[in-house]
Amino acid sequence: MKIDGRPYRTIFPEPGGDAVLVIDQTRLPFAFEIRRLARAEEAAEAIRTMVVRGAPLIGVTAAYGLALGLREDPSDAGLARFGAMLAATRPTAVNLRWALDRLGATLRPLPPDIRAAQAFAEAGRIAEEDVANCRAIGQHGSRLIAEAARARGGRVTVLTHCNAGWLATVDWGTALAPIYAAHDAGVPVHVLVDETRPRNQGAALTAFELHAHGVPHTVIADNAGGHLMQHGQVDLCIVGSDRTTATGDVCNKIGTYLKALAAHDNRVPFYAALPVSTIDWTLRDGVAEIPIEERDAREVTHLTGRTADGGFATVQVVSPGSPVANPAFDVTPARLVTGVITERGVTEASAEGLLRLYPERRAAA
Amino acid sequence: MKIDGRPYRTIFPEPGGDAVLVIDQTRLPFAFEIRRLARAEEAAEAIRTMVVRGAPLIGVTAAYGLALGLREDPSDAGLARFGAMLAATRPTAVNLRWALDRLGATLRPLPPDIRAAQAFAEAGRIAEEDVANCRAIGQHGSRLIAEAARARGGRVTVLTHCNAGWLATVDWGTALAPIYAAHDAGVPVHVLVDETRPRNQGAALTAFELHAHGVPHTVIADNAGGHLMQHGQVDLCIVGSDRTTATGDVCNKIGTYLKALAAHDNRVPFYAALPVSTIDWTLRDGVAEIPIEERDAREVTHLTGRTADGGFATVQVVSPGSPVANPAFDVTPARLVTGVITERGVTEASAEGLLRLYPERRAAA
Repeated sequence: MKIDGRPYRTIFPEPGGDAVLVIDQTRLPFAFEIRRLARAEEAAEAIRTMVVRGAPLIGVTAAYGLALGLREDPSDAGLARFGAMLAATRPTAVNLRWALDRLGATLRPLPPDIRAAQAFAEAGRIAEEDVANCRAIGQHGSRLIAEAARARGGRVTVLTHCNAGWLATVDWGTALAPIYAAHDAGVPVHVLVDETRPRNQGAALTAFELHAHGVPHTVIADNAGGHLMQHGQVDLCIVGSDRTTATGDVCNKIGTYLKALAAHDNRVPFYAALPVSTIDWTLRDGVAEIPIEERDAREVTHLTGRTADGGFATVQVVSPGSPVANPAFDVTPARLVTGVITERGVTEASAEGLLRLYPERRAAA
Repeated sequence: MKIDGRPYRTIFPEPGGDAVLVIDQTRLPFAFEIRRLARAEEAAEAIRTMVVRGAPLIGVTAAYGLALGLREDPSDAGLARFGAMLAATRPTAVNLRWALDRLGATLRPLPPDIRAAQAFAEAGRIAEEDVANCRAIGQHGSRLIAEAARARGGRVTVLTHCNAGWLATVDWGTALAPIYAAHDAGVPVHVLVDETRPRNQGAALTAFELHAHGVPHTVIADNAGGHLMQHGQVDLCIVGSDRTTATGDVCNKIGTYLKALAAHDNRVPFYAALPVSTIDWTLRDGVAEIPIEERDAREVTHLTGRTADGGFATVQVVSPGSPVANPAFDVTPARLVTGVITERGVTEASAEGLLRLYPERRAAA
């Protein structure tokens, strides 16, 4: 997507191929800086410190990190060592492990002297596949927005939660891909951006990328969406998914479930946009079966932002001495999800709906 | 209620009667300071700058402010001038105007030389009535908590939103009054405190007052409540109400509606605690009829808190250049409200339920 009219990806090889370049997401939204990763350790550090975040982008960064490591030591020992180091950066990220396993399986049979070059090529393929999947999600989802625009005879307002945008992927995003595709096709779309406490990915990242690409939007407190739906100010909700059950339950950033309830109560269509890689075909009941990560209380008690003099400060906002709980995700039951948008198309959030798009899973089911 | 074991009210006359003392709520939760108001202008300033906030407390502060002014100028002109100045501090506060009108009606027939003393006495009566109403709400509501504790055979977890505690009233609070009454009676109650973006009244004020009084509690992001209800971690919700329709719709801090939806979806009882003064008997449909105040975008874009060195800083947290919408309240339809707790008892959230408690309104209805 574009920043000041110039197209960017979140990660791309340096011309010449000695390093990979990433957008430093810890500096957003207040500064746009490119960080150069020349060694596996630097890639691991970038993942650990959330210079890069978002499951697809983390996977691609780990893959490039392994390629960088293999330039120093392409032996079996090097492959194992760099792989383990990169896998340990974000212990719960499924995508990270999947990308490293895929590279390991490709590289292990190869002679060491060609491993680094093959690793770069494979990392590039993973990146291209992610872009293709996100673009396809965008194309399928944009039809829903275009239809809503026709039905309304004008501007369509889409509410989204958290950041499932191009900053979380290599390009396009998942939940935001349909919005970019619709906007680029001339459909008048306006985005309501949930702030997304406690980490504020909506206010910081989604708002930044929509603004940079020129998509009209409004930031709101997470509390505001229900009221706006009651008053007919939301036409459509589109969110991402970190993990999807075979029955269409959607596990996404904490607070997603509340918006789905409000959408259901006000007959606002509610979609989850997701690549097939987020579907866990072994799960049937998301609320009962998906363990929810409890994160650091400090994410709730403290906030970092820009001061009036252009510096940065971290401030405590919760009363001292008060305990804090911080569940990071929640599960939206399929009954509240109007449909899911995947790279293969739009379908109902149900076992049957998903199997229609992924018939190769019928035998397994 | 108590701070460090010592009982306090949010406002009280200075011994000797030359001034009134208030807790400076702009300094909470990081500093507990008493502010002295000796003149009407100081009372007006305290309301305007939110040194005091919460509808009942604002009304009492305005009443004392008028009494302070009448000591300087007890003439009809003084009465009109101080009344107008105090009324202009928070243009939308219904309670403020109600308290000033009540004092005006009491004082206007009296000779000027006794007006100041009578004004002090009347302000004191308004304060005592508020305390009595809140205490009664506490007694009625605490039975619901005690019943839940018996049914559960142990600790009851109550979720609340915003601050409808003793800091918003003279003592006890509305939504928190049942919690204090239950806690003081030995019922094991634990409170889940919604942070309450964008002004963070939950994280700052509700957490502070529960901690100060010794009531066990946990602060959570507004997004977390639905997930916790899905997992059986909430037994009861109790919120306040800024305005209640004759049919039981509840207008309260933005985000209340989302919690009511989650409570309904998970069969968690959802109560609104309110003094009769919040009921607007002329309203039938809260969503359609109650205008919702749109507040300053800066409440969403900026946060003030304590820095690591003990100072204070204000930081921007929303991406620069992104527009913001900030509706301050929402309406929870009566169908989602299990019951209302008033100073006269607990009843269904319906026209019939409210008239049963306030039969004197039947003729008017």
